[in-house]
Amino acid sequence: MNRLKLCGWGYEGDDLTPEEEDGVLATYATRFEVDGFERTTMPDPAGIELAAARLTPPETLSGICSTDHMDRLLHTYGESYPDYVRTLAGDFANAPDVVAFAKTEADVSAVLDWAADAEAAVIPYGGGTSVVGGVEAAVGGSFKGAISLDLTGLDRVLDVDTTGLTARMQGGIRGPQLEAALRPHGLTLRHFPQSFELATLGGMIATRSGGHFATVYTHIDDLVESVRCLTPSGPLESRRLPGSGAGPSPDRMMIGSEGAFGVITEAWVRVRARPTFRASTNVSFDRFEDAVNAVRLVSQSGLFPSNVRLLDNMEAWLNGFGDGKQHLVVLAFESADHPVDAWMARALEICQECHGRYDAEAMRDPDAHKAGATGAWRTAFIKMPHFRVPAVSAGIIHDTFETAIPWDRFDQLHAGITSAMHQAIRDVTGKSGYVSTRFTHVYPDGPAPYYTFIGLGRHGALLEQWGELKRRASDAVLEHGGTITHHHAVGRDHMPWYERQIPAQFAETLKAVKKTLDPSGVMNPGVLLAAD
Amino acid sequence: MNRLKLCGWGYEGDDLTPEEEDGVLATYATRFEVDGFERTTMPDPAGIELAAARLTPPETLSGICSTDHMDRLLHTYGESYPDYVRTLAGDFANAPDVVAFAKTEADVSAVLDWAADAEAAVIPYGGGTSVVGGVEAAVGGSFKGAISLDLTGLDRVLDVDTTGLTARMQGGIRGPQLEAALRPHGLTLRHFPQSFELATLGGMIATRSGGHFATVYTHIDDLVESVRCLTPSGPLESRRLPGSGAGPSPDRMMIGSEGAFGVITEAWVRVRARPTFRASTNVSFDRFEDAVNAVRLVSQSGLFPSNVRLLDNMEAWLNGFGDGKQHLVVLAFESADHPVDAWMARALEICQECHGRYDAEAMRDPDAHKAGATGAWRTAFIKMPHFRVPAVSAGIIHDTFETAIPWDRFDQLHAGITSAMHQAIRDVTGKSGYVSTRFTHVYPDGPAPYYTFIGLGRHGALLEQWGELKRRASDAVLEHGGTITHHHAVGRDHMPWYERQIPAQFAETLKAVKKTLDPSGVMNPGVLLAAD
Repeated sequence: MNRLKLCGWGYEGDDLTPEEEDGVLATYATRFEVDGFERTTMPDPAGIELAAARLTPPETLSGICSTDHMDRLLHTYGESYPDYVRTLAGDFANAPDVVAFAKTEADVSAVLDWAADAEAAVIPYGGGTSVVGGVEAAVGGSFKGAISLDLTGLDRVLDVDTTGLTARMQGGIRGPQLEAALRPHGLTLRHFPQSFELATLGGMIATRSGGHFATVYTHIDDLVESVRCLTPSGPLESRRLPGSGAGPSPDRMMIGSEGAFGVITEAWVRVRARPTFRASTNVSFDRFEDAVNAVRLVSQSGLFPSNVRLLDNMEAWLNGFGDGKQHLVVLAFESADHPVDAWMARALEICQECHGRYDAEAMRDPDAHKAGATGAWRTAFIKMPHFRVPAVSAGIIHDTFETAIPWDRFDQLHAGITSAMHQAIRDVTGKSGYVSTRFTHVYPDGPAPYYTFIGLGRHGALLEQWGELKRRASDAVLEHGGTITHHHAVGRDHMPWYERQIPAQFAETLKAVKKTLDPSGVMNPGVLLAAD
Repeated sequence: MNRLKLCGWGYEGDDLTPEEEDGVLATYATRFEVDGFERTTMPDPAGIELAAARLTPPETLSGICSTDHMDRLLHTYGESYPDYVRTLAGDFANAPDVVAFAKTEADVSAVLDWAADAEAAVIPYGGGTSVVGGVEAAVGGSFKGAISLDLTGLDRVLDVDTTGLTARMQGGIRGPQLEAALRPHGLTLRHFPQSFELATLGGMIATRSGGHFATVYTHIDDLVESVRCLTPSGPLESRRLPGSGAGPSPDRMMIGSEGAFGVITEAWVRVRARPTFRASTNVSFDRFEDAVNAVRLVSQSGLFPSNVRLLDNMEAWLNGFGDGKQHLVVLAFESADHPVDAWMARALEICQECHGRYDAEAMRDPDAHKAGATGAWRTAFIKMPHFRVPAVSAGIIHDTFETAIPWDRFDQLHAGITSAMHQAIRDVTGKSGYVSTRFTHVYPDGPAPYYTFIGLGRHGALLEQWGELKRRASDAVLEHGGTITHHHAVGRDHMPWYERQIPAQFAETLKAVKKTLDPSGVMNPGVLLAAD
């Protein structure tokens, strides 16, 4: 079995090649006008100091619980920039005391019961792909210890309904596993967040993850037909329904609950037939506002493209397209039912009306989705997480944040964020950096812009420098009307802004819900609700 | 200004013609093999006895509060079958003590404050179109009185955003008013529940109403960008966002809250350009299961028709189509952006593959949506509510109920409901009756079937007979896995089944939310949560 990396994305051995890594760093060196970078390396895991485990699992749980050094290290962090910085620094102060590897719902229940008795925090741990501190046992001093509850043993597809295109799966199943189980039926969930390779279904639901499609049914919110959650107060399982008007949706209370109310152990999800018809191409724009307009009009057209992602000139260049001047719209349609030519033709008309240019030849290639800009974008998108550890080791601050905003407020938000981040990078690093944007998802009423910022940091100060940049970014997002997160979730990192964003009365209802479902307050404390 | 009817749908003078009424009753007479019907008539409103109002509004509210006899009568009921039976019987035992006509948010707040002080129940009253007892002041003995809070004075469109296709509206605006305000901008909400003529936006949101489109974004749930709600604990206003991954959705907690948590005073809603391209036709099927299959495959095709409503043979016949043997699928596409021929062509191919037959000529008519089966269906759909009072007055029990169910469970649910209702009508009325079905909305994972049942009741026993039929229907829906309501809401009539349907832990969270937002428990007591 493959071993997960302690530092970096994915499994051991699954890295950039030295040539790829050198290439990326050389590009950065040119951009920052430096000769090279001082590199830090990962300390020997065996030598990393961990506090003694404060919890002793009861006899009945000894078979699934571990206080093994590597298990604790591997369950300390998610995949955020500060997670990587601290990993490379050998700082594992918040390591969980115990890792519990649940194989069954009974295991989950037993761990929740034990935690309440032992006054221990429980951190549900799926793929461990949180980029917002959602799986870190930074739970404050009021607990007698912390248990990382690893759910990846709950990894089965339990039912596949080929008539209604639904499937029942356990919460700990990872993206590739669930796709493998659906493939023999000709089906796919087609929910491919960037964390797909590792992320679990339960984690996707708990964090409201954003999917493959740029439009229409794409959020995991839309793909959940019913959910089963083990809360400390008992199981909460909603009825399998394609739609319902019976009171507020129980599903929507658990979707986005980030482990604070309980553990998502099962869900019925909406799947679909694997696409057989495809069309894709890329459209270039000289002016950013023209590209934005084109994406807006396509999103409001009712054509529902599978992809209509906008990459600004910098983002396009970072992904290997163009000369750094052209803005790019990656446009694609797919269907399991019908050829999509009429759809693509109309979407391209809209782009042309907005002064976009596209390569008519590339479109005719049936493998176009694997080739050209679209294909390169797919590859870059998949490889992207691997760029991050080399960046940290070279002292480069490289992070992303994302939001969503109504169209009529986008221009102001975009200008505000871009100028705030350029200024922040100069203030924090003493040097200019890079800020780029793309749209990951678009709605008829607004886009979900996704920002990347890059600055040349300083070893030893990276955490603090990153923290200041993240604060400036989050302030700008909130100030201009955006949401603190469109699909990365709240976790611990976004809490100060989440508390500013949500209506005060809604915060009170969340407290009341938490008190009801988790009366001892052991579930992922500090996430969604400030720890007392 | 038009006056609303005390008994029956719509405004005074807006009735079936005597000929239309006679025609409908003659059809019923033939079907029930009777010579005619004993008719009851509406008593003189002035002579209807009302208990003395138990509440005296404070001086500050005297300008908006009324204890006028007609105001109290007009705010006693919604538009359900038992509402009509009791109206015709002159039974207004649950009339509110006071009707408060709010013109501003300040009025709403003042009424909520007064209610808490006076220990009076508040029944938010929008269009008064509830068919589930949602606006009836049947609040039990623990209150010192009941206030019907009429919100139709909050009837303004406050902002129209033609870039992002959104608009901010007050909660008391009725369907035709909001469409009239959008029309000059070339926009439409295009949310046309059967109650459209009277229903208010806030009521639609509070009850999760189902819209015009049979597929994709159609529920009011999908059309709400943000919501503002005055709760007894203070205002709850969500941020305007096209999408968000920041914790559980605040909007989804208020959507479907049925007045039990507060009053929806404003919302930003997603609107769209008025359609200019249309195609519609009707497809006939000999076998019901073929029609179901066709609708399922179309709903799973990604074509997203605006209409793909199935009418079974009985329903088709009741609406004036065919000979009572053919099942009908009403199929339509519309767009403000592009011709929809390619969409319709593929949908018709699917129908043909399922042995459907259609009239190719009718399709070519640009006014097809106003003519033929589609047009007749529209007219019948709009006129349908007017058939109900004549039915009651003739002692005919005629009601509908609706649900939603995954496709793989539909056959069993449909057989179960149909046989249960035929048996129930025989048991209750001593005579065979009629049970028909249509699909009002379809999802890739299941349909929303809508049932009509008709039996020959007995004057004096109608309420009891209807009650037994409603119980049998609701039991059958729950037993076979459906939801107690897909878009009619819970109200008071569905409470026993809602309590069976929702997960126990979710019921506990709703109690906690209610306690938080409405600590005195004055908001629409008995709805969503059993009155203590």
